[in-house]
Amino acid sequence: MIPQGYEFAGVRTGLKSKGRDLAIICSREPSNAAALFTTNKVCAAPIIVSREHLSSKLPKRAIVVNSGYANTCTGHDGVDDARTMCKLVAKYLKCEPEQVLVASTGIIGHQIPMDKISLGIENAFHSLSPENFSQVAQAILTTDTKTKIASDTVEVDGKKGIISGVAKGSGMISPNMATMLSFIVTDIAVEHNCAQALLTQAVDASFHHLTIDGDTSTNDCVILLYNKACRNLPITPEHSCYHTFKTKLTLVCQRLAKMIAQDGEGATKLIKVWVQGALSTQEARVCARTISNSLLVKTALFGADPNWGRIAAAAGRSNVCFEQSKLDIYLDDIKLVHHGKEVEGSQKLAHQVALQNEYILRVELNVGNESDWMWTCDLSYQYVTINAKYHT
Amino acid sequence: MIPQGYEFAGVRTGLKSKGRDLAIICSREPSNAAALFTTNKVCAAPIIVSREHLSSKLPKRAIVVNSGYANTCTGHDGVDDARTMCKLVAKYLKCEPEQVLVASTGIIGHQIPMDKISLGIENAFHSLSPENFSQVAQAILTTDTKTKIASDTVEVDGKKGIISGVAKGSGMISPNMATMLSFIVTDIAVEHNCAQALLTQAVDASFHHLTIDGDTSTNDCVILLYNKACRNLPITPEHSCYHTFKTKLTLVCQRLAKMIAQDGEGATKLIKVWVQGALSTQEARVCARTISNSLLVKTALFGADPNWGRIAAAAGRSNVCFEQSKLDIYLDDIKLVHHGKEVEGSQKLAHQVALQNEYILRVELNVGNESDWMWTCDLSYQYVTINAKYHT
Repeated sequence: MIPQGYEFAGVRTGLKSKGRDLAIICSREPSNAAALFTTNKVCAAPIIVSREHLSSKLPKRAIVVNSGYANTCTGHDGVDDARTMCKLVAKYLKCEPEQVLVASTGIIGHQIPMDKISLGIENAFHSLSPENFSQVAQAILTTDTKTKIASDTVEVDGKKGIISGVAKGSGMISPNMATMLSFIVTDIAVEHNCAQALLTQAVDASFHHLTIDGDTSTNDCVILLYNKACRNLPITPEHSCYHTFKTKLTLVCQRLAKMIAQDGEGATKLIKVWVQGALSTQEARVCARTISNSLLVKTALFGADPNWGRIAAAAGRSNVCFEQSKLDIYLDDIKLVHHGKEVEGSQKLAHQVALQNEYILRVELNVGNESDWMWTCDLSYQYVTINAKYHT
Repeated sequence: MIPQGYEFAGVRTGLKSKGRDLAIICSREPSNAAALFTTNKVCAAPIIVSREHLSSKLPKRAIVVNSGYANTCTGHDGVDDARTMCKLVAKYLKCEPEQVLVASTGIIGHQIPMDKISLGIENAFHSLSPENFSQVAQAILTTDTKTKIASDTVEVDGKKGIISGVAKGSGMISPNMATMLSFIVTDIAVEHNCAQALLTQAVDASFHHLTIDGDTSTNDCVILLYNKACRNLPITPEHSCYHTFKTKLTLVCQRLAKMIAQDGEGATKLIKVWVQGALSTQEARVCARTISNSLLVKTALFGADPNWGRIAAAAGRSNVCFEQSKLDIYLDDIKLVHHGKEVEGSQKLAHQVALQNEYILRVELNVGNESDWMWTCDLSYQYVTINAKYHT
């Protein structure tokens, strides 16, 4: 189930020690793109170039992405290399370089071997096909253990449109060998300003709920490419299918985000940290993020330990409004803490919940009516191994 | 080398599975106290009571502290228990309960067995002696592997005064079994307002530079008890020895803080993260803190990996002012990054530095003239073991 009017390729160039490491996504017909990039001050050369190209009025046609090299902290040469990647793709597509977006993920600080890139782009154009979407999902992986693909359909103006996305990310963001990348394509026509707004909302409701260690990669990027193959009236806020499209786009992003959390470096569990009864959504999110990022909470999750003291302490240092004498904490349906004190007999039941691969850790602040949530994973020995044993 | 006019005791009550677990520090002559407490919204009952007592005008005479139980999230009963601890001590000292400060560290959420506390305080008063300072250092430990004591002398008005401190903290703050506690005693008379200001400055220049995981315990507290046994004119900002006293108090706090970082849970290395060339001290500290708390930096430190990409990425997400094209990074004297790019041939030399037990990680932002630093430790397998295997 892949949108119409697109071609894909993922090839092996030798940038990584094994597997596909360069991908191209392009639309065979008029298309355009919306995108969101990392907020890190140290940002990759491809991010600089893609931002420039996105600000050009020319409609976007393609995305080129490599894994193995981040092209970050590579100076002016690195920016030139990212531009060259767009130029090479533009030559094959007979379009302007500004119509191509570029992304990279891998080791920081090393110049990309451009001979490999150049040959890789040539090979990719020889193998472009509407069938090769999964090759893209493979070519963007680094420390990931699984490809991440999600699709959904939307009925628009009586026609069936499709939204499909790929993502990569090893859960714990590792600036050497990982980055959160996601590319989403749809054949549903969308009015340009509306596309950017919808992508922002969808990312805010999905990838932004993914916090593993609070780190923001230098290469993070989410791009939505949309053409008009579905022949619908372009989606605008007034379109009768606006809300359906918005919901489905968000769903695709949420599925991909969840797959990233599940495939976290060394992760054994996926936990939804849900803070309710906050004064504002913002406060709920800050609190959920603080709990999700706490090393002590994350090691307790790994040990299947319903260690609510660590959860309460993390909530306490998040500096959001609540009183400890009103705090309630649940693991799934087991109430562990009532009004700041342990519920008698709850430990054994909560331990059973904590043994599961996936569950909800719910904190009720009892000061307001707003809520928000985060996905996180546990912190295992394997995480330390992956990140300590990897040498630059 | 212990200040005159004090008596100490550290006894075993059975609150912990082994070792001393209750301590008393008291002055045999007129004394007073300055203190700083946790900023966590979830705070321990002893913190609530000590804050109250500190706000009373009555001069302070003693500190009572237990390990094994945090007396946090224990409701009104917990606050009553903390008050009772002060009352019991006051009875022996024939003073008001408001003249006694109280602290606890250990498991959150369990009521302290007050029969053990009561018997412990009685035993402690039987064994009080000016010689027993090291017993206090022992009685406050939880997951710490070493006692932490630091002393220094100050020449004031021709007399030799002494400042001695103990501290505990397992590096990674663990709300179940750890907390940062420090008690400092001096026989140098200090004017009361001046004492609080000096303690605030000293803590800001020492314990506040200690960031292991960004967690703030519910029980953190630093108390300075000072009497007049040295018979000097009380220290005020106008006193000729003001600056010497301030420096020595800060030094004692810094030595204790460094011992805490060295004794971090599972820590194998002590690293000073020093950010220079920042626009403000505040920005330098934020940047140093972000680098120090990064899981990816900490696991790289454990692996003795001069992984500067992770350091640059952490600096980048700290949101302080700098340009990546001007960033320099050093390990001790080895320049690893010059103007955002790797210095050729630096990796091998930097790896040698990173193999050491203690070194300086220096980041030069090159945008201003301000600097600040943090002490941190690495993140090892042992940390995960300690915190995942500990069950509530």
